[in-house]
Amino acid sequence: MSAVYSLDDQVFTAFLKYGGLALLKLVLMTPIITICRYFASGITVEESVTGTKIRDKSKHFRPRLERFRAAHLNDLENIVPFILLSFLYVATKPDLGMATYLFKVFAFTRVIHTVAYLKRFRQTIRRLTYVPGIIVNVYMAMHIVRAVW
Amino acid sequence: MSAVYSLDDQVFTAFLKYGGLALLKLVLMTPIITICRYFASGITVEESVTGTKIRDKSKHFRPRLERFRAAHLNDLENIVPFILLSFLYVATKPDLGMATYLFKVFAFTRVIHTVAYLKRFRQTIRRLTYVPGIIVNVYMAMHIVRAVW
Amino acid sequence: MSAVYSLDDQVFTAFLKYGGLALLKLVLMTPIITICRYFASGITVEESVTGTKIRDKSKHFRPRLERFRAAHLNDLENIVPFILLSFLYVATKPDLGMATYLFKVFAFTRVIHTVAYLKRFRQTIRRLTYVPGIIVNVYMAMHIVRAVW
Repeated sequence: MSAVYSLDDQVFTAFLKYGGLALLKLVLMTPIITICRYFASGITVEESVTGTKIRDKSKHFRPRLERFRAAHLNDLENIVPFILLSFLYVATKPDLGMATYLFKVFAFTRVIHTVAYLKRFRQTIRRLTYVPGIIVNVYMAMHIVRAVW
Repeated sequence: MSAVYSLDDQVFTAFLKYGGLALLKLVLMTPIITICRYFASGITVEESVTGTKIRDKSKHFRPRLERFRAAHLNDLENIVPFILLSFLYVATKPDLGMATYLFKVFAFTRVIHTVAYLKRFRQTIRRLTYVPGIIVNVYMAMHIVRAVW
Repeated sequence: MSAVYSLDDQVFTAFLKYGGLALLKLVLMTPIITICRYFASGITVEESVTGTKIRDKSKHFRPRLERFRAAHLNDLENIVPFILLSFLYVATKPDLGMATYLFKVFAFTRVIHTVAYLKRFRQTIRRLTYVPGIIVNVYMAMHIVRAVW
C-alpha cells in the first residue's frame, strides 16, 4: 500500500512543480545557445564584408558563447543532482513545509543564478545565488542518508 | 491508490523500454572509449619501433578519441535530462500514443546521432538527428510545467 | 496494485541506502572544491607579499584543484547514470541479493576511487576501483533491456 510516488502526495506534487521548472530552464539552454551561436557567426560573416570591425565583434560575441557553455555545464552539475536527490528525498516522506521550501529556494536561486551568469553581475551576487542550491543538495543528501541508515 | 509508477502502466513500460535503450548506449560509451584508447596507444607504441610513421598514426587516432569524448559529453547533456524529464512526464499521466512516440523518436535519433558523430557524417545529417532530441526534451518540460501549475 | 517504488520493497530501500551515499559524496565535492579554491587563492595572495615563493605554491595548488575538477566530472559521468539506471533496475523487480550486491560494490568502489584520485595512488589502483562501477552500470542497463523487451 505504501507507494512512494503518488499524485495524492503533496510533497511529490511540489517536486513536480519546482523540479519541472528547473528542468525546463535546463533544456531551454541548448536551443538558446544554438540560436546565439547562429547569430554570432552570422554577424561575424556580415562584418567580414565591412572590414576591420570583425575582430571587435568576435571579441564581443565569443565570450558570451563561452558564458552560455559555462552556465549550461554549471546547470548540469547542479540541477541533475538536485532532481536525483529530490526523487530519493521524496521517498523518505519528509515534512511538506520543509520540502516545498527547499524546492522553492533551489528553483528560484537557479533562475537568478543563470541571469546573473549571462548578464555578468558582480561575483558576489552570483555566489549568493549559487550557495543556496548547494546547501539544499547537501541537506537533502544528508537527510536521505540519516533517514535510511 | 494512485501510484504513479507501476508496471501495469503502459506509459511507464514504454519509458522503461526506450529509456533503458538510451541508457545502455550511454554506459557502453565508456568501455568503448577505454578499449579504443588502449588500441590507440598500443598502435602508437608499435609504430614507434618502425619509425617516422608515428605522427601520422597519432594524428589519425587522437581526433577519433576526441570524437568519442565529445559524443559522450553530448550524450550526458541530452540523455540524462531526457531520463529525468521522462520520469516527471510519466507522472503527469500523459497520452500513451504521444508518450511512446516521443520516447521512440528520442531513442532512435540518439543512436543515429552517435553513429553520425563517430563516422563523421556531414554536419547537416548530425543536426537532423540532434534537433529532434532537444524538441522532445523541451516539449516534455513544457508539458510537465503546464500539467502541474 | 503493483506500485514499483515502495518502502516495503527491500530492493528500493537498499537503493535508497547506497544511492543516497553515492549522491552525498557527489554533492560534497562542490563545497570541498570551493573551500580548497579559497585556501589556494588565499595562499597565493599571502605569498605574493613575501615574494618569489608564489610560483612554487601555485604549482603545488593548481594541480590539486585540477584533480578535484576531474574527479567531480568523473563522478557526474558515473554516479548520475548509476542512479538513473538503478531507478529503472528497481522497477524490473530484480533479485534482492543481486541488487544489494551491485549497489554495495558501486558505492564502495566509488568512494575508494575518489580517495585514490585525490591522493594520487598508482593508476593501477584507480583502475581497479573504476572498472567495477562501469561493469555494474553496463550489467544493470543490459538487465533492464532484457527484462522489458
